[in-house]
Amino acid sequence: MSDLILLLSGPNLGLLGSRQPEVYGTSSLADHVAAATDEAARFALAVKHVASDHEGDLVVAAGAARDQAAAVIVNPGALTHYSWALSDALASFDGPVIELHLSNPHARESWRRLSVLSPVAAGIIAGFGGAGYRLAVQAAAGLLGMAETT
Amino acid sequence: MSDLILLLSGPNLGLLGSRQPEVYGTSSLADHVAAATDEAARFALAVKHVASDHEGDLVVAAGAARDQAAAVIVNPGALTHYSWALSDALASFDGPVIELHLSNPHARESWRRLSVLSPVAAGIIAGFGGAGYRLAVQAAAGLLGMAETT
Amino acid sequence: MSDLILLLSGPNLGLLGSRQPEVYGTSSLADHVAAATDEAARFALAVKHVASDHEGDLVVAAGAARDQAAAVIVNPGALTHYSWALSDALASFDGPVIELHLSNPHARESWRRLSVLSPVAAGIIAGFGGAGYRLAVQAAAGLLGMAETT
Amino acid sequence: MSDLILLLSGPNLGLLGSRQPEVYGTSSLADHVAAATDEAARFALAVKHVASDHEGDLVVAAGAARDQAAAVIVNPGALTHYSWALSDALASFDGPVIELHLSNPHARESWRRLSVLSPVAAGIIAGFGGAGYRLAVQAAAGLLGMAETT
Amino acid sequence: MSDLILLLSGPNLGLLGSRQPEVYGTSSLADHVAAATDEAARFALAVKHVASDHEGDLVVAAGAARDQAAAVIVNPGALTHYSWALSDALASFDGPVIELHLSNPHARESWRRLSVLSPVAAGIIAGFGGAGYRLAVQAAAGLLGMAETT
Amino acid sequence: MSDLILLLSGPNLGLLGSRQPEVYGTSSLADHVAAATDEAARFALAVKHVASDHEGDLVVAAGAARDQAAAVIVNPGALTHYSWALSDALASFDGPVIELHLSNPHARESWRRLSVLSPVAAGIIAGFGGAGYRLAVQAAAGLLGMAETT
Amino acid sequence: MSDLILLLSGPNLGLLGSRQPEVYGTSSLADHVAAATDEAARFALAVKHVASDHEGDLVVAAGAARDQAAAVIVNPGALTHYSWALSDALASFDGPVIELHLSNPHARESWRRLSVLSPVAAGIIAGFGGAGYRLAVQAAAGLLGMAETT
Amino acid sequence: MSDLILLLSGPNLGLLGSRQPEVYGTSSLADHVAAATDEAARFALAVKHVASDHEGDLVVAAGAARDQAAAVIVNPGALTHYSWALSDALASFDGPVIELHLSNPHARESWRRLSVLSPVAAGIIAGFGGAGYRLAVQAAAGLLGMAETT
Amino acid sequence: MSDLILLLSGPNLGLLGSRQPEVYGTSSLADHVAAATDEAARFALAVKHVASDHEGDLVVAAGAARDQAAAVIVNPGALTHYSWALSDALASFDGPVIELHLSNPHARESWRRLSVLSPVAAGIIAGFGGAGYRLAVQAAAGLLGMAETT
Amino acid sequence: MSDLILLLSGPNLGLLGSRQPEVYGTSSLADHVAAATDEAARFALAVKHVASDHEGDLVVAAGAARDQAAAVIVNPGALTHYSWALSDALASFDGPVIELHLSNPHARESWRRLSVLSPVAAGIIAGFGGAGYRLAVQAAAGLLGMAETT
Amino acid sequence: MSDLILLLSGPNLGLLGSRQPEVYGTSSLADHVAAATDEAARFALAVKHVASDHEGDLVVAAGAARDQAAAVIVNPGALTHYSWALSDALASFDGPVIELHLSNPHARESWRRLSVLSPVAAGIIAGFGGAGYRLAVQAAAGLLGMAETT
Amino acid sequence: MSDLILLLSGPNLGLLGSRQPEVYGTSSLADHVAAATDEAARFALAVKHVASDHEGDLVVAAGAARDQAAAVIVNPGALTHYSWALSDALASFDGPVIELHLSNPHARESWRRLSVLSPVAAGIIAGFGGAGYRLAVQAAAGLLGMAETT
Repeated sequence: MSDLILLLSGPNLGLLGSRQPEVYGTSSLADHVAAATDEAARFALAVKHVASDHEGDLVVAAGAARDQAAAVIVNPGALTHYSWALSDALASFDGPVIELHLSNPHARESWRRLSVLSPVAAGIIAGFGGAGYRLAVQAAAGLLGMAETT
Repeated sequence: MSDLILLLSGPNLGLLGSRQPEVYGTSSLADHVAAATDEAARFALAVKHVASDHEGDLVVAAGAARDQAAAVIVNPGALTHYSWALSDALASFDGPVIELHLSNPHARESWRRLSVLSPVAAGIIAGFGGAGYRLAVQAAAGLLGMAETT
Repeated sequence: MSDLILLLSGPNLGLLGSRQPEVYGTSSLADHVAAATDEAARFALAVKHVASDHEGDLVVAAGAARDQAAAVIVNPGALTHYSWALSDALASFDGPVIELHLSNPHARESWRRLSVLSPVAAGIIAGFGGAGYRLAVQAAAGLLGMAETT
Repeated sequence: MSDLILLLSGPNLGLLGSRQPEVYGTSSLADHVAAATDEAARFALAVKHVASDHEGDLVVAAGAARDQAAAVIVNPGALTHYSWALSDALASFDGPVIELHLSNPHARESWRRLSVLSPVAAGIIAGFGGAGYRLAVQAAAGLLGMAETT
Repeated sequence: MSDLILLLSGPNLGLLGSRQPEVYGTSSLADHVAAATDEAARFALAVKHVASDHEGDLVVAAGAARDQAAAVIVNPGALTHYSWALSDALASFDGPVIELHLSNPHARESWRRLSVLSPVAAGIIAGFGGAGYRLAVQAAAGLLGMAETT
Repeated sequence: MSDLILLLSGPNLGLLGSRQPEVYGTSSLADHVAAATDEAARFALAVKHVASDHEGDLVVAAGAARDQAAAVIVNPGALTHYSWALSDALASFDGPVIELHLSNPHARESWRRLSVLSPVAAGIIAGFGGAGYRLAVQAAAGLLGMAETT
Repeated sequence: MSDLILLLSGPNLGLLGSRQPEVYGTSSLADHVAAATDEAARFALAVKHVASDHEGDLVVAAGAARDQAAAVIVNPGALTHYSWALSDALASFDGPVIELHLSNPHARESWRRLSVLSPVAAGIIAGFGGAGYRLAVQAAAGLLGMAETT
Repeated sequence: MSDLILLLSGPNLGLLGSRQPEVYGTSSLADHVAAATDEAARFALAVKHVASDHEGDLVVAAGAARDQAAAVIVNPGALTHYSWALSDALASFDGPVIELHLSNPHARESWRRLSVLSPVAAGIIAGFGGAGYRLAVQAAAGLLGMAETT
Repeated sequence: MSDLILLLSGPNLGLLGSRQPEVYGTSSLADHVAAATDEAARFALAVKHVASDHEGDLVVAAGAARDQAAAVIVNPGALTHYSWALSDALASFDGPVIELHLSNPHARESWRRLSVLSPVAAGIIAGFGGAGYRLAVQAAAGLLGMAETT
Repeated sequence: MSDLILLLSGPNLGLLGSRQPEVYGTSSLADHVAAATDEAARFALAVKHVASDHEGDLVVAAGAARDQAAAVIVNPGALTHYSWALSDALASFDGPVIELHLSNPHARESWRRLSVLSPVAAGIIAGFGGAGYRLAVQAAAGLLGMAETT
Repeated sequence: MSDLILLLSGPNLGLLGSRQPEVYGTSSLADHVAAATDEAARFALAVKHVASDHEGDLVVAAGAARDQAAAVIVNPGALTHYSWALSDALASFDGPVIELHLSNPHARESWRRLSVLSPVAAGIIAGFGGAGYRLAVQAAAGLLGMAETT
Repeated sequence: MSDLILLLSGPNLGLLGSRQPEVYGTSSLADHVAAATDEAARFALAVKHVASDHEGDLVVAAGAARDQAAAVIVNPGALTHYSWALSDALASFDGPVIELHLSNPHARESWRRLSVLSPVAAGIIAGFGGAGYRLAVQAAAGLLGMAETT
């Protein structure tokens, strides 16, 4: 089995730290990736990060994950709510997919309550801000049956 | 601040280990509570567990949490989908509320996609089976600003 | 005819005075019951109060009202929105039922706009805070054809 | 503060006493206004009554209330269900608005269950027939902090 | 295989005989249980009856049925329409579940047309009044492959 | 019994003959009233015509019909689709109400398919252009049991 | 131009006179056809009547009308609400189609409010009982530009 | 009173035994009719069976039942979901109508959950396979007040 | 395996060539059947054609196909949109079903967008006019694994 | 061509400057009309202003516009959302209609998102406060092909 | 006229042969393109293939087709269900557009039943797996009036 | 403050002048940009134009606007109706956003009536063709408090 977690970041996440900090916090996306990578190392896992404002880039990355990664963690940004293409790409992946959100979509506008990705995810973590990245890596490791190595 | 996490378990969770193990796993509720308690200890937190098949018992416990607990973790069972009374009780709590599900409700029957509790929760963890209990405790500790003590 | 008004208080009302005082006010449930009792005395009526966070307790009380009470005043809390069991129990009562809310449900979340009890109520009083209790007793007395005795 | 309550009566209320007495009772609108005026006097309040079958007349009156009245009581008749113009006019009033119905709209045709005025009302009184007028005046006095003067 | 049929009676059924006899008939719940027990005896089956106005009691009983009963007959009262908790509890039972109604829910208010229990029931009997109890026992016996012993 | 038919014409009907003649024809409203009056004379009936672009005027006229007219024929224009006030006014009339449309609302925009007046009408005639006026008078005469006098 | 009116009668109309006379009246279908034929004679028109409880028979008759009839009058019975096949057949007819109902569908159950035929009809007559047959023939004659010959 | 039960079988029931036996069982329609007839004999009742894939045939039979049968048992097949014509025909019958299904429609595709016949049925039996035929006859006999004669 | 393709033609298709030629073209149904038969011959397949304006006839034919045909091609006409009976009949066939439409239902009225047959079809061909018949035969041959014999 | 722009102001606009200034700004309606008139003069156009809280007055003015004005600018207030009568009146006007809103209806309550006037408008300007009046006049001039004269 | 068919392949189609072969088959996209090209050659047509996981690439290609291609065949993948941008681009093409799907979307998840492209397509072919490519080319050739050249 | 207006052009706008000129006019996108630039110069503002058929490019540009532009004018093309990603990107911009459409979306297909961008826009201009570009620049200048410099 691959020792790689593919971490996908969707539209507008590059703005983290500057966009609506009262909703999304003050850390940058790089901070979050670093935390995830650090956490993964505890389980002897590596993290490959693909970030894009283009749906197509994420579809490509998810589609290629089959031969590369053991698990996918995806923070899809607003694509959560309409990207059936990303949903199909993730459905084609044979390992666990974890859907991650910084904020709790159910406590915001009503249209954020529907995720077209959730039906193909193994699990969901939402609302814990940047701390969600470490939790998601742990969850992935758990689903993969990995023990902490440290 | 209280060092107590109130853990609420809703209807049918007492059947865990015997009911639909392909969906809910083979561990018992006691196993999960033990894991949560163990994890909490790492953050010098205690766990008080209230389990009931009666909505009213959970409403009472959530309503009393205000003066007792620092955070609430709730696995509401099927009450997820209609218990506005439990939702109101949790809304009256002034600390973080974490909604926890063993399975991913979005990958099951369509009526499981609506949670009436999510709008009043700080965060959500779903789909990781028993491992979700340790993740939820960590998430709670994070929201409370607790560092691991071990 | 009985000289008793049955006053029912639903889930979370025991938290009155502490929960969201900006919505529900600072008086306790005991204060409200005392006001209702005082008002009822003006019409030579007594008040029996049943409060519970359990739907079943209210169903039992409403079902027993037939042989005991002349009118029912019910502040159903969040059961307003889904307790068809309480609705059926109130429908079986042969005297007037008054639905009472401290706040105006129509000025809050959209899901609070539907009451499953209203179709079986004689009348509705909502939005006047604790003052609603005296109004509801007066309304009940009016429907019962009682004159003020003081 | 003004000592005036503006009482608004919408379409078809002039027919009271003759139209469907089994639903609306046998008293005339004049009877109801007299009762409201009488009740108001107990709180040293006056009542100004504006009745019209024209939505525009009620919008004008509600719009002018800002500089004249301390509270508005409105029995909007069928405008309840679609007059966003009246709703906006009432929203522009800075004192409390009380929505009053003789019958209980929730116990009749399903289209009567939606009120476009309720979201801008302070409170609602429905289903008590003519007795509702005295209750509404009391409720208004209560919201205005007026004590009985008699 | 157990020779026990678990008979569950939901909210307000204790009022049978007095509540709306034109809808529900004049027999008491005890009469119906006696009829079911008598019918069951023809198939060498016993009946255990659990009646409660509390959803939680029924959930407990349904959850415990797995190890005790061969079949469940449930007259859920108004819980029919919203108790996903009871639905989940019945789904965890491994024998046949028969949903029983005295009246025909489809010939009454529109909200009675949805049953959240039907998807987990083996079969449904509705509209035959008290006679439905004997029919339900026969149907259960049939599903269990029991022949009449008398 | 009164020998009067009240004919009500709603908003924009004064434009007949100039507005969208491909939909509404080239005759004026006066032409239609003359035809109705002529037809009514065959049954020894008179026609009183009230036309207004104000909903309130039609509500007043319909409300007053009780003591004046034997039947009402109403071409409500666009009020068809939302004037619950006119619907209530017509419901208070104790003779037959005939809803008349020049065009067939079901063959036009989808929002024209709902009439809030139809539930309180005795009958409906639509789609026959100006000829509908004579048909409506005949229909009214028939419902009133009048024979042709010529 | 053909001098024939095709009159179509749908399911259950053969029961007229015996089925729910409080809704449909006491006259038989033969009575109504005779009235229509008599009225048609005034305009030198003949009536061909096709009655069936089979949708297919009506579709055949409507499809054949193109070469035979000048107008179609259809009382579709319950097919009104779902027979897109009859709707398509009528749409293929190049003369006027008149939809006729004895009762007013909008004053009955809500599902009767949708007609799948109305969008392809020239006009609609509903609610006048048997008198509707003469009115429909007159309306047809009018649409065909026929003057009374008597 | 007639001693006849009219048994109606709708579209595709002639395929029973070959079509989807995992859903509908392996018995033929003839087997089910024989069972019903046998059961009816216990109550001195006869069974007349009308089976057709044509809605019209069933409408004719149901319409004629008024003068011939004491009760109707109908297994409408897929007509359950859209045949308002059959619904109207059954509504015209003055004895009890029992809706019978071999499988439980609520446990299958969502569109099977709506029955347009249920509102006019006295009672419903569903989900017991061929055993439902005997239960339906018993239920009919019960509604007719017939005692077993054997 | 049978060498027969059953071709089913639904209501109004007999009008092809005369009804709305701008939508459906100028060829007759016989022309289309001839083309399908000719194309089938290329694969050594025969075509049996059943055309009817009666749903029941098509249900019978589809139900009988099980023992006779290798594939079914169905142009259901307006039955597409509501005939659950035909849908069930086709579902009982164990070979491939091809749904064929001359026009593209999605480019016409909105109610034509729903096909109740599509869920039980193997494939769909729509919008190619008469050419669709040859395409459907080819598609059927392909699904049956037949090579061209010419 | 007329050199007149008809400017229509609907309900509650007379309150501008006092009602909810945070939404609607502090300028009065007179200020806005003056700005529009001033802007129109740049294109040698005059402005006729009709303001009313009565729908009927606006319908009359819009209906009369045909013979008087080259364009209509309408700020319909809350009539935006339900006045099909005003919509029909504007549809009868043969020049361009511009729908103008001070605030952006899509950024407020959800019911403000539907405009029944927009389908008959040439264009829409919303959200620019009082500046919208000048923009609307320019837009009208543009649609009329008028060049600035200054 | 151009002799080019533009073949568009949307997101995830590059995974064909590996992703869910039970749904999409084992052939690769290249296999399908080769088949389409081969079939096109029979009609002296060429195929230009544009495949992308980016909606924008497909929009660009469809927009450029106007000057290059005689027909477009599009297998849009999951963009089928939400890409109004691709729909608009295809609508701007003046030749026929054929929507192609390997599987039958109506036999899968309910959200796959809506295609936002179908209203602008000339025709649709779905459910025949890779064989659909040859059928689509034939259909295109037919719409273009091309005869086989071999 | 920046003196830059960012002008965003979404999918298919590059086709302007050739695609459906009856809807979108005959000017090219370059013409419109030139007009906007010219108009902006009157307010001493510059225009930066970003046009793309890729949602991601627009998201990137909108996200970068924060540090570059004073206002954003966006003609989103079909992304209007589903691009929550672009909506979120625009919401992160701290200056005014103006939504611009050449045609009036409310006068076209019903799906064009919903804009997911409108809730985050300051204002909307639609339906004025190319003239909308100058109006939008003026509106932006107004919101920015810029006076004309010429």
